[in-house]
Amino acid sequence: MNNIDIFNDKELKKGIKTFLETAPDVYMAGVSVDTVIFGFHNDKLKALMLRFGNTPYFVLPGGYIMKEENLDDAALRILQERTGLKNIYLEQFYTSGNTSRSREDVVKELMQKMIGVIPNSNWFNQRFVSVCYYALIDDTKVNPVVENFFTEIKWFDVNKLPKTLYDHDMVINKALKRLQADLDEKLVAFNLMSETFTMGQLQKLYEAVYQKKFVRTNFQRKILSLNVLERLEKQYSGKSHKAPYLYRFAESKK
Amino acid sequence: MNNIDIFNDKELKKGIKTFLETAPDVYMAGVSVDTVIFGFHNDKLKALMLRFGNTPYFVLPGGYIMKEENLDDAALRILQERTGLKNIYLEQFYTSGNTSRSREDVVKELMQKMIGVIPNSNWFNQRFVSVCYYALIDDTKVNPVVENFFTEIKWFDVNKLPKTLYDHDMVINKALKRLQADLDEKLVAFNLMSETFTMGQLQKLYEAVYQKKFVRTNFQRKILSLNVLERLEKQYSGKSHKAPYLYRFAESKK
Repeated sequence: MNNIDIFNDKELKKGIKTFLETAPDVYMAGVSVDTVIFGFHNDKLKALMLRFGNTPYFVLPGGYIMKEENLDDAALRILQERTGLKNIYLEQFYTSGNTSRSREDVVKELMQKMIGVIPNSNWFNQRFVSVCYYALIDDTKVNPVVENFFTEIKWFDVNKLPKTLYDHDMVINKALKRLQADLDEKLVAFNLMSETFTMGQLQKLYEAVYQKKFVRTNFQRKILSLNVLERLEKQYSGKSHKAPYLYRFAESKK
Repeated sequence: MNNIDIFNDKELKKGIKTFLETAPDVYMAGVSVDTVIFGFHNDKLKALMLRFGNTPYFVLPGGYIMKEENLDDAALRILQERTGLKNIYLEQFYTSGNTSRSREDVVKELMQKMIGVIPNSNWFNQRFVSVCYYALIDDTKVNPVVENFFTEIKWFDVNKLPKTLYDHDMVINKALKRLQADLDEKLVAFNLMSETFTMGQLQKLYEAVYQKKFVRTNFQRKILSLNVLERLEKQYSGKSHKAPYLYRFAESKK
């Protein structure tokens, strides 16, 4: 938690004003980045969001692209700056570009309450097209942080999202659809399972992502047909005769 | 064919100069659109490209986004302006944003030969991030056109691409990978098959996209499992006992 009162913090006001003055020289006009970070743990799928000041609104970790920075590098930097998350495998999945998306009245009101009216001609008030990335991580292995005008960073069940700003609702839904379409292919890249795991553990991940139950035998057949798993020999220690088989990702797939 | 000599055409020079003067007021800075149009006919997969003037270089149909225009609408408009193609189902698949992509020397040289040196500070010479769309169409049903500084519009076998400008080689490869990943899901949306078709005809499409042969029985099983096809009853006209079954897309999937 960050206990800042965004509407009455002099340092923050000064920081934002400085940012708005220097941004046009540092960042590209017209293009921004948003990231949807899905967390998986205890068989649940969640999305990481930042609380905008003391308001009830949450946003995705996002930001701007430096003029001399590759797009993918910008996404990684922004994610790290907003959340502290490093070395995450990010997958670009969508660019959101309706004219209406940058012009939400709520954002304007919040900014105005913080630092006064920002003229329409200001860099910040131009139209932005946002390039969106997603990732899927084990949410117990990371420790996201908040700063700036965010007061809280929180995992939300993807079915129980808070009030969001911009088009972030839609972006999260698109990311989930894409995750569902890509999971087979990206399974290894997400590096989410422990070194060895049971078929049942993998099934839990699929059930969380697809938000439905699978029949065990069908699931097993489907997963084995992907040809990315290696089954380990059972260790007959005496008491583990009934233990399930353990699997790991085949070396050649890593 | 458009027989213009781009390096010696006064009207064209004037047109480009006017465009460069007015563009910053009309179009977004920093973001452009490119489209990869795959054509399928006679069991071949091809990509549509435009010849840049009298040079050996070809580019994808592309352009800029108007300030008050939704991104998807811009893609459709640009495709129509460059090729005459209307009402095409376009799928956004990638946004290309390395800093190096807009700065190819060949493009600078060609532009310079046409209208003289364009200062680095000019709108045209800024960095552009390009949002890329693809489509798959029956290339006999359309009649692409060329104008402006393009002299030829041509279908190329995806394995025999010409010299390209910018990062268009990479973009076409990305589009093909995405088409391969999406074909099952987008099959109906592409509206590519005639009203009724045989399993063999559909297999030819898959073989062209995946660039490999499928075993007939495996292919049939896989396609039927998608649950989008409806098999028509055979019409016993006397001579067609050995004719293959005809299929169509199930009403609910359209």
